[in-house]
Amino acid sequence: MTKPIPHGKVYIWPLQQGCWCSSCFFSKKIMQQTFQQYQDCIDACLHCASACDNCASSCLQEEHVKMMARCIQLDMECAALCYTAARLMSLGSERAKELCRLCADACDACAAECAQHQHDHCQQCAAACRRCAEACRRMAA
Amino acid sequence: MTKPIPHGKVYIWPLQQGCWCSSCFFSKKIMQQTFQQYQDCIDACLHCASACDNCASSCLQEEHVKMMARCIQLDMECAALCYTAARLMSLGSERAKELCRLCADACDACAAECAQHQHDHCQQCAAACRRCAEACRRMAA
Amino acid sequence: MTKPIPHGKVYIWPLQQGCWCSSCFFSKKIMQQTFQQYQDCIDACLHCASACDNCASSCLQEEHVKMMARCIQLDMECAALCYTAARLMSLGSERAKELCRLCADACDACAAECAQHQHDHCQQCAAACRRCAEACRRMAA
Amino acid sequence: MTKPIPHGKVYIWPLQQGCWCSSCFFSKKIMQQTFQQYQDCIDACLHCASACDNCASSCLQEEHVKMMARCIQLDMECAALCYTAARLMSLGSERAKELCRLCADACDACAAECAQHQHDHCQQCAAACRRCAEACRRMAA
Repeated sequence: MTKPIPHGKVYIWPLQQGCWCSSCFFSKKIMQQTFQQYQDCIDACLHCASACDNCASSCLQEEHVKMMARCIQLDMECAALCYTAARLMSLGSERAKELCRLCADACDACAAECAQHQHDHCQQCAAACRRCAEACRRMAA
Repeated sequence: MTKPIPHGKVYIWPLQQGCWCSSCFFSKKIMQQTFQQYQDCIDACLHCASACDNCASSCLQEEHVKMMARCIQLDMECAALCYTAARLMSLGSERAKELCRLCADACDACAAECAQHQHDHCQQCAAACRRCAEACRRMAA
Repeated sequence: MTKPIPHGKVYIWPLQQGCWCSSCFFSKKIMQQTFQQYQDCIDACLHCASACDNCASSCLQEEHVKMMARCIQLDMECAALCYTAARLMSLGSERAKELCRLCADACDACAAECAQHQHDHCQQCAAACRRCAEACRRMAA
Repeated sequence: MTKPIPHGKVYIWPLQQGCWCSSCFFSKKIMQQTFQQYQDCIDACLHCASACDNCASSCLQEEHVKMMARCIQLDMECAALCYTAARLMSLGSERAKELCRLCADACDACAAECAQHQHDHCQQCAAACRRCAEACRRMAA
């Protein structure tokens, strides 16, 4: 196990990707700090997932449902990816970054569609998707 | 369809449970407002789900994992129920209340176990579970 | 810990609900057998969840989407509950039965709606929902 | 909209990726057939997700839990990705392939770890993970 290095106000141990030897494993307590760093992105994903579920359900009650079909479809896909991205980050998974990249693309597509509709739930969903896409891209960088 | 009735600053239409005739269906636009009311409980559930996932993963890195076995088990169960309660509320489902009742019980059990451990992630999880149990019971009332 | 009792081809230990003392905890290895018993219900839930997701997405592509609005809404709710029921059973959770009860009700509602539409995806979803409702009720008994 | 082309026993319309104009949108009824094609991969993902959840919970009851820590962690991550891959495929999402690629990697890692332990639940989980990784790679090809 290598030496701790200063990182902001704390010392962290440089994790060797994929190494779970007993030394590295305990050094992974650092994941607790990672969780703090991830927190912004987790919040953005969870808020976006909930906004997508709400938008899908609300679209179904609009007068012109047919016009909203693609919006509902993208809402469902985006919600599924956002919930899972939040889960992988909360679990401190090494795969979180890759999923965040995929999630950001889904958010972009959903935001582009939602933004075309004037309904409050669509505009709110578009805003949540844009914020989530940004947070996921920062995370995946 | 019955007449709108005053409710705080807005007028709402009393929804006939389970009725989806075209009149009632459109009156369900009111669900958008319901979503706002649900927002507190949705937030509490999502925060709790994420705290449980984080706690489960962090427990696995503690020195005495065996002592944490029940904590991890309850974390996994509680997270699954919290995510789903948040989803049903976001979808404006009529079944949300029943699930919130079940979710509150899972939160109680998880909080009781987590509270016995001194780790930060356990204490944070216990607090999130307690807040979520309260919010779910208010919702289910 | 009480004595093992014969159960089909195996001996099982009567689990004391909610007891996780070290004796009971290890006796819970029996949960592995429970998992086998649960398998039918897990399969029915997973199949139903997937059929609901497929039905929701396929309904959005039908010519008369508006007619399918309630079907899509119930598909989304039913899928969320079925996935989670399968998760809790796979995790050997004590709360699985209660969720199965709720899941069975959601399946009934979704089956009743889907059965009214002639589309293949609706008829397939209705059949999956009925099978799942039955399996969940047996589990919850 | 282009002409249908023969594909096995059915005719399919070549979908223009990402195009949801009214012509293309209706041609997407073909997704119903896609769902059939996806079925094998969906089944493998759902079976794997359930096996991972069962393995995680069963590991927690083993005598030497500490030895199982990495197994439980990878089970949780793999289950989350498998459920979501199954969801995206069931929804006929254009993003399903990308997620399947990520899911296959998670399955590989989980299978490699599980295979090292002699417990039935670990061996069953390793087998489910391998089958799922294969199905996901075929899908993503």
